[in-house]
Amino acid sequence: MQGNMMDVQLTVPTILERIRTQYAAREVVSLLVAGRDEQGNPVAHKHRTTYGQVADRSLRLAAGLLGLGLQPGDRVATLAVNSFRHLEAYLGVPSAGLVLHTVNIRLHPEQIAWILNHAEDRVLLIENVFAAMIPALKAACPKLEHIFVLGPTPQPIPLPGVADYDTFVADSAPLARYPQIQETDAAAMCYTSGTTGNPKGVVYTHRSTLLHSMVSAPKDALNVGEADSVLPIVPMFHVNAWGLPYTCAMYGAKQVFAGVFADGRSVASLLRDEQVTITAGVPTIWMGLLGELDRAAADGEPYDLSRVERMIVGGSAAPESMIRAFSDRHGLSLLQAWGMTETHPLGTASAVPTGVDPTSDEGFALRAKQGRTVPLIELEILDDDGNRLPHDGKTMGRLITRGPWVANSYFKGEGQKNFFDLDGQLWFDTGDIATLDERGYMHIQDRAKDLIKSGGEWIGSVDLENAIMAHPAVAMCAVIAMDDPKWDERPLAIVTTRPGQSVTHDELTEFIAPRFAKWWLPDATVVTDQLPIGATGKILKRELRDQYRGYSSNPGLVPPASPDRSE
Amino acid sequence: MQGNMMDVQLTVPTILERIRTQYAAREVVSLLVAGRDEQGNPVAHKHRTTYGQVADRSLRLAAGLLGLGLQPGDRVATLAVNSFRHLEAYLGVPSAGLVLHTVNIRLHPEQIAWILNHAEDRVLLIENVFAAMIPALKAACPKLEHIFVLGPTPQPIPLPGVADYDTFVADSAPLARYPQIQETDAAAMCYTSGTTGNPKGVVYTHRSTLLHSMVSAPKDALNVGEADSVLPIVPMFHVNAWGLPYTCAMYGAKQVFAGVFADGRSVASLLRDEQVTITAGVPTIWMGLLGELDRAAADGEPYDLSRVERMIVGGSAAPESMIRAFSDRHGLSLLQAWGMTETHPLGTASAVPTGVDPTSDEGFALRAKQGRTVPLIELEILDDDGNRLPHDGKTMGRLITRGPWVANSYFKGEGQKNFFDLDGQLWFDTGDIATLDERGYMHIQDRAKDLIKSGGEWIGSVDLENAIMAHPAVAMCAVIAMDDPKWDERPLAIVTTRPGQSVTHDELTEFIAPRFAKWWLPDATVVTDQLPIGATGKILKRELRDQYRGYSSNPGLVPPASPDRSE
Ligand SMILES: Nc1ncnc2c1ncn2[C@@H]1O[C@H](COP(=O)(O)OP(=O)(O)OP(=O)(O)O)[C@@H](O)[C@H]1O
Ligand SMILES: Nc1ncnc2c1ncn2[C@@H]1O[C@H](COP(=O)(O)OP(=O)(O)OP(=O)(O)O)[C@@H](O)[C@H]1O
Ligand SMILES: [Mg+2]
Ligand SMILES: [Mg+2]
Repeated sequence: MQGNMMDVQLTVPTILERIRTQYAAREVVSLLVAGRDEQGNPVAHKHRTTYGQVADRSLRLAAGLLGLGLQPGDRVATLAVNSFRHLEAYLGVPSAGLVLHTVNIRLHPEQIAWILNHAEDRVLLIENVFAAMIPALKAACPKLEHIFVLGPTPQPIPLPGVADYDTFVADSAPLARYPQIQETDAAAMCYTSGTTGNPKGVVYTHRSTLLHSMVSAPKDALNVGEADSVLPIVPMFHVNAWGLPYTCAMYGAKQVFAGVFADGRSVASLLRDEQVTITAGVPTIWMGLLGELDRAAADGEPYDLSRVERMIVGGSAAPESMIRAFSDRHGLSLLQAWGMTETHPLGTASAVPTGVDPTSDEGFALRAKQGRTVPLIELEILDDDGNRLPHDGKTMGRLITRGPWVANSYFKGEGQKNFFDLDGQLWFDTGDIATLDERGYMHIQDRAKDLIKSGGEWIGSVDLENAIMAHPAVAMCAVIAMDDPKWDERPLAIVTTRPGQSVTHDELTEFIAPRFAKWWLPDATVVTDQLPIGATGKILKRELRDQYRGYSSNPGLVPPASPDRSE
Repeated sequence: MQGNMMDVQLTVPTILERIRTQYAAREVVSLLVAGRDEQGNPVAHKHRTTYGQVADRSLRLAAGLLGLGLQPGDRVATLAVNSFRHLEAYLGVPSAGLVLHTVNIRLHPEQIAWILNHAEDRVLLIENVFAAMIPALKAACPKLEHIFVLGPTPQPIPLPGVADYDTFVADSAPLARYPQIQETDAAAMCYTSGTTGNPKGVVYTHRSTLLHSMVSAPKDALNVGEADSVLPIVPMFHVNAWGLPYTCAMYGAKQVFAGVFADGRSVASLLRDEQVTITAGVPTIWMGLLGELDRAAADGEPYDLSRVERMIVGGSAAPESMIRAFSDRHGLSLLQAWGMTETHPLGTASAVPTGVDPTSDEGFALRAKQGRTVPLIELEILDDDGNRLPHDGKTMGRLITRGPWVANSYFKGEGQKNFFDLDGQLWFDTGDIATLDERGYMHIQDRAKDLIKSGGEWIGSVDLENAIMAHPAVAMCAVIAMDDPKWDERPLAIVTTRPGQSVTHDELTEFIAPRFAKWWLPDATVVTDQLPIGATGKILKRELRDQYRGYSSNPGLVPPASPDRSE
């Protein structure tokens, strides 16, 4: 029997209509680049607008794009920083029945061109700070018909098809009527970083975007409401900035955009000055902020961040020591979340269950896990033969997921082997190795490609890294596999130290030994100046593995201790 | 272009799986009837179970029902109070691919039989306290094949097809695999009270149930999370108890059920003893609670309700004076919500916008409105010719709505005139008269059928009633139309007073005069002992109109003042 409910489709225009009719007065704040100082560093200018203005301009953008002759489903790319203009693209492009394609600004121009060509983008909205790329992109991307520059340029760019975004928007009349959109239509797309092979496109639907926004808002996830002021430090090219621009607009929360200013001081000042209540970023961003907060406190000029209620951390594992440091030293609460480009991204959030004090040892330990699923997301762990493994908090397995905002394939059908059938249902293989416990807490042990296989047994690098980062002298740490003649692979720790600190291999292994079986302990430690960080703020282990290939046979700085399998 | 997201359907089993796998230890508390005292009043017994138990029993119920030969879409009725057993039906029946039909327990047995026959229910789950009705229902409802009695009975009921629910559940093995369910399949149904004509069935889908749960959870709506303890006083036969049983299960909140015990003292004790954080009910319930809290405070034994964060009030307008009384005298915060059986019910919630202090005059005035839409719900107001009216906070019009959890028709296609096309889209006429303002705040002025039309102009009864109820001597008030030879209709106020208080027509009109145009003021006031209250706690104006028909030509107690149209 069918029910008798209206067939109202879940589409992005419903979000745009909310900011237009309910939240028109609510503020949108952006740090823009006003110019350069003598060292060539960008100087910030704070821009303020409202959701009412953003809605109006989004509707003009939508109508303007359709006026160019774009057809439903055509892709409009952005190469832009976080700002109100990017937000207009988030809302306006899908509301025109077109597909918003956010491109990673930290890639090489050739990679960008490859992605624009692969997505067959017809329009590109490019931030003025990247305008120098335009000639090369035009030359490399024959399908790109129109380029609009976001923000002022010193002089007009005299190339055919290149125009000023603000003028384009101002000259278009607002869209009078939304086109017919089905909720399964494409709304946006995003490419993975392509750590192996070429990047792959994930195409979000209107439905997945709406459901993801709805599931992100409640308090066991991001806790967004109209009274909030939200600063996403996560870049808007990355997985739709974790969905926050849509979630905030749906609920009328003020949005604050940092533009190119993601350093600790800029972030701390924005958090304070814009009365931010919720912010989101990867661990490396929070490490930067922690340093600035510590410095300011030591200098007797601490930031007043009393309005900050929740800092979301995801993208890679948040070390327990960092969660504790923010709590103990600055009274700030981190909430860990896990997800992927392929999952829109929100899959789990690590709210502490009833009855557990978040600042107790158990509370911190739970918050260092990736958390429990949000509604409608399913997780399982599988062994190498595809059998389901027990949810006992101990057994490690390949993490698979399914849900209404999980990809069923990549754009143009690439990478099909990651999508597979289990008992008649479609699942996606995340490539992560995790445990699941009786309460549903998921704990990432490693990424499958980073796992260390020692004597036929798995060693997870993530717990080792987090334990090492708890050492007061250590700033960052990556544990990778090095070749070993006897055990095939053994763990190698690569660390950077805090300013003025030093540490030895023996000190570190002694420090972490109580928490691990002996055969898990790294055989060697390299202290280095810098770890390679990728476009989304994650340590690039692939580069480290290349760099330290053959390290075991040529120990260099620190001689490896002989692996001891007894516990 | 289609997106590449999984086709995962929004179905009730996804909620059942959450309490089974993530929230198994979370509590479910029910007040059951343990027996009768000497006066024949029910004596309460507090029953405790867990979501894990409820999930297991729901799966057994599902399998048991399918074992009876029920086919997908068959209806299973409940005639039950709020308890864990009713919750099992909420979860188990739709998860079996069947349709949960919650029947209003306060109706006359003939009306109940009419509804059971109309819905063609094959199974009835009936609370033991209503067991006396069974023979009559069996006789009147030939399609009813199985009746299961919820809770113990003094002795078994020796009728064919009648059995004990707990035994039935215990004897079934849990459902091994959910049936294939499409999200547009029927999940549950509910009949309207039928204030005019026969009751009409509204059939909810799995999709509408899931979306409604998702949209109910965020903080600008009900604010439900795992840490909450939630007491719905609204009966579970009514609009799925405002969706709370599903929302709470989806998010793992503890559920507390009051059974037949909805009096002020029982409610106050449950709120205190079960550390309730969120509770929901109609204004009459809160009036009862307010009396008990006032009494207890005056007796120097106030209840400690410091854990209560939010009291949801809906179903009819919450007088500002009541919202103020809870805030001022007991530090309790009421949040008004509006909805209907036809809207699942949540349409609007009256959270106070940023920048407004909820306990300021502006804050209280806003909270006395019905609020702003939750995401995906649209509201418009129309004039009698079907033209859209301005959202200026002043213009009154017929309130229409659309959204994914709004009915597109009634069961068996009745009442089709309430569903109509506007500019190519389907809308539902709520029968309410309201204003909408620039920020989207909706304010119910009256129900169309209760409107008073005086000299061709509308007078809304709701504002008059709320103003009169602010008078310290007044307990309840209804304002209805009385016939008038000159103006067609004029307002008549009918009031009940607080214990030991009295009030006159002149005192009341003087009291409210500053807030209204003179021609809005009631021409007469009747002080009565009791107002007729319907099955869902609302004043039955239809009965009052019948009772006071012809009142103007025979003024009785109070002579009507002559209407004065000058302002
Ligand atoms: N809270 C977290 N804890 C641990 N790992 C996380 C967390 N959040 C995300 N990750 C890791 O990030 C992966 C998702 O990466 P994402 O899709 O954001 O980036 P990407 O562009 O695909 O880049 P890459 O896959 O190369 O990292 C997850 O599969 C997981 O390994
Ligand atoms: N917060 C509120 N303020 C004012 N009126 C409300 C509020 N919430 C609900 N109502 C009224 O209740 C109506 C919905 O009633 P509901 O569907 O719950 O009951 P019903 O079974 O249809 O009974 P009836 O329609 O006879 O009242 C709304 O159309 C509106 O008139
Ligand atoms: Mg990836
Ligand atoms: Mg009704």
